[in-house]
Amino acid sequence: MADFASALNDRDVLLLFGLTPPRASVTAEKADQIAEVTLRRLEGMPLDGLVLYDLDDESDRTEEERPFPFMRTMDPADFLADHLTGWSEAAVVYRSVGKYTPEELTTWLDSVPPGQPTVMVGASTSGKQVRTNLPEAQALCRSRRPDVPLGAVAIPERHKEKSNEHERLIAKQEAGVSFFVTQVVYDVTAAKNLASDYVYACRDRGLEPARMVFTLSLCGSTKTLQFLQWLGVDVPRWVQNELTNSRDPLGLSVVHALDTARELRAFCAHLGLRCGFNVESVSTRRAEIEAAVHVARQIAFEMGD
Amino acid sequence: MADFASALNDRDVLLLFGLTPPRASVTAEKADQIAEVTLRRLEGMPLDGLVLYDLDDESDRTEEERPFPFMRTMDPADFLADHLTGWSEAAVVYRSVGKYTPEELTTWLDSVPPGQPTVMVGASTSGKQVRTNLPEAQALCRSRRPDVPLGAVAIPERHKEKSNEHERLIAKQEAGVSFFVTQVVYDVTAAKNLASDYVYACRDRGLEPARMVFTLSLCGSTKTLQFLQWLGVDVPRWVQNELTNSRDPLGLSVVHALDTARELRAFCAHLGLRCGFNVESVSTRRAEIEAAVHVARQIAFEMGD
Repeated sequence: MADFASALNDRDVLLLFGLTPPRASVTAEKADQIAEVTLRRLEGMPLDGLVLYDLDDESDRTEEERPFPFMRTMDPADFLADHLTGWSEAAVVYRSVGKYTPEELTTWLDSVPPGQPTVMVGASTSGKQVRTNLPEAQALCRSRRPDVPLGAVAIPERHKEKSNEHERLIAKQEAGVSFFVTQVVYDVTAAKNLASDYVYACRDRGLEPARMVFTLSLCGSTKTLQFLQWLGVDVPRWVQNELTNSRDPLGLSVVHALDTARELRAFCAHLGLRCGFNVESVSTRRAEIEAAVHVARQIAFEMGD
Repeated sequence: MADFASALNDRDVLLLFGLTPPRASVTAEKADQIAEVTLRRLEGMPLDGLVLYDLDDESDRTEEERPFPFMRTMDPADFLADHLTGWSEAAVVYRSVGKYTPEELTTWLDSVPPGQPTVMVGASTSGKQVRTNLPEAQALCRSRRPDVPLGAVAIPERHKEKSNEHERLIAKQEAGVSFFVTQVVYDVTAAKNLASDYVYACRDRGLEPARMVFTLSLCGSTKTLQFLQWLGVDVPRWVQNELTNSRDPLGLSVVHALDTARELRAFCAHLGLRCGFNVESVSTRRAEIEAAVHVARQIAFEMGD
């Protein structure tokens, strides 16, 4: 496995590709087949790692109906170990820590291959019942597996609303976090505001800012747009108008994602913030997944070291 | 005088330069001198017109202290007619219509040179006592002087808050308005959202969108930043951070204004919305005024027909 900690440190622009594991109900053969198709799509791309999500039912976060129904998905670590066997590079395994008891997390942590990174995610709402909270899970990771690069999520939309997300990032960093992965970015100004407040706050405290990986996701239909909004992604009005009025929304979305990547990369270079991109598709639609692969390849061409 | 109505119609990118008339208390000699210095600064620039503001005391709009004290200024039409005598091109004379009785507005309208444009502005708050309201003033202009190109203001920040500014623009257009001048733009996403909603709403109604002139203003100090915010301009956090942490805030502001102009121009070209820029300085500081002149010249170089 490539050394993720070194990539985290050395890369100019870190490049990740995000995957949702197959539904929990699929057979082992089907899961193997999905893994194979996925790896074939990504062949030859200079990725620094995959990202494997650990889905949680977030329907408590909003009263609106989920545009795509929630399906329980396979455990990301199991999908990686049992099916993505052809993948020899790093993979960032997400953990929605509230789903697990401290014992379950400990058992899992003990089984993590050396150097394999994780992103620990807290509850989607503060009122939600959790088995382990985020600070507890982070402390467990630090004490049990200090070799595991520990990541956390960063949410520009929360910064827009509460103006203190940068303080939360610093608290996470002090809990051992060495990189951040954002929620899907459609509002580039909101992402720049968070990155800027974070970097200047680090500077005030004499801290080195941790790498910030921006998540990009494609949108080729009104339903996917609704789903992005359901997930809490702030899609600016002008982007909504373009996506709903275009004859080729997916092509437009590719252009928008690449513009976003270029603008964020230039801005982070100016700030002195190491950055990266995590490209994914929030839907399972083939055209949107292939567009995500295309965007990741284009970022590699334009920004590769 | 160059024909403003033709420029409004034909120009790829309309270029205006905004001026605040001198204080009402200055002598005629001093006003002549200010006019002369101003015209010397603008010499050789391919401007489609000056913009002459009609300041109103807006302190009812906010309880915060005005960073620069309010000073009564000379009437913009008087400054133009009596002092800017060396200016032979168009000039857009603003009218804060609430300050005047219908009789005063009529007298002024009757004196407007043929084809000289005006921008009529309503009250800064809905509760404010006015002598004439905006629809009355617009009707007066239409009936009395249909040859006068009539403009109105467009406020992206109001769209952010109430999401209906595009409907207000369409209502103004139906009242005879043939161009819009925005409030100072620092939040490019907010400006794009308004332009986009406006264009798609026009399309739905089979209306040709009127030209939108975006106002750009420079900022070289914390005090000017505070004044912009006092005026209601939404300056994104990242821009605030850059301006307050830079060793050369004015240089950075020049770069930001030009980036904003390029992004808005490209976006309007995509939308099929005729656009333009009105460059001004909200402060009377010499360095900021000269930076505004520089930005206008650069826009002319980059975007001139």
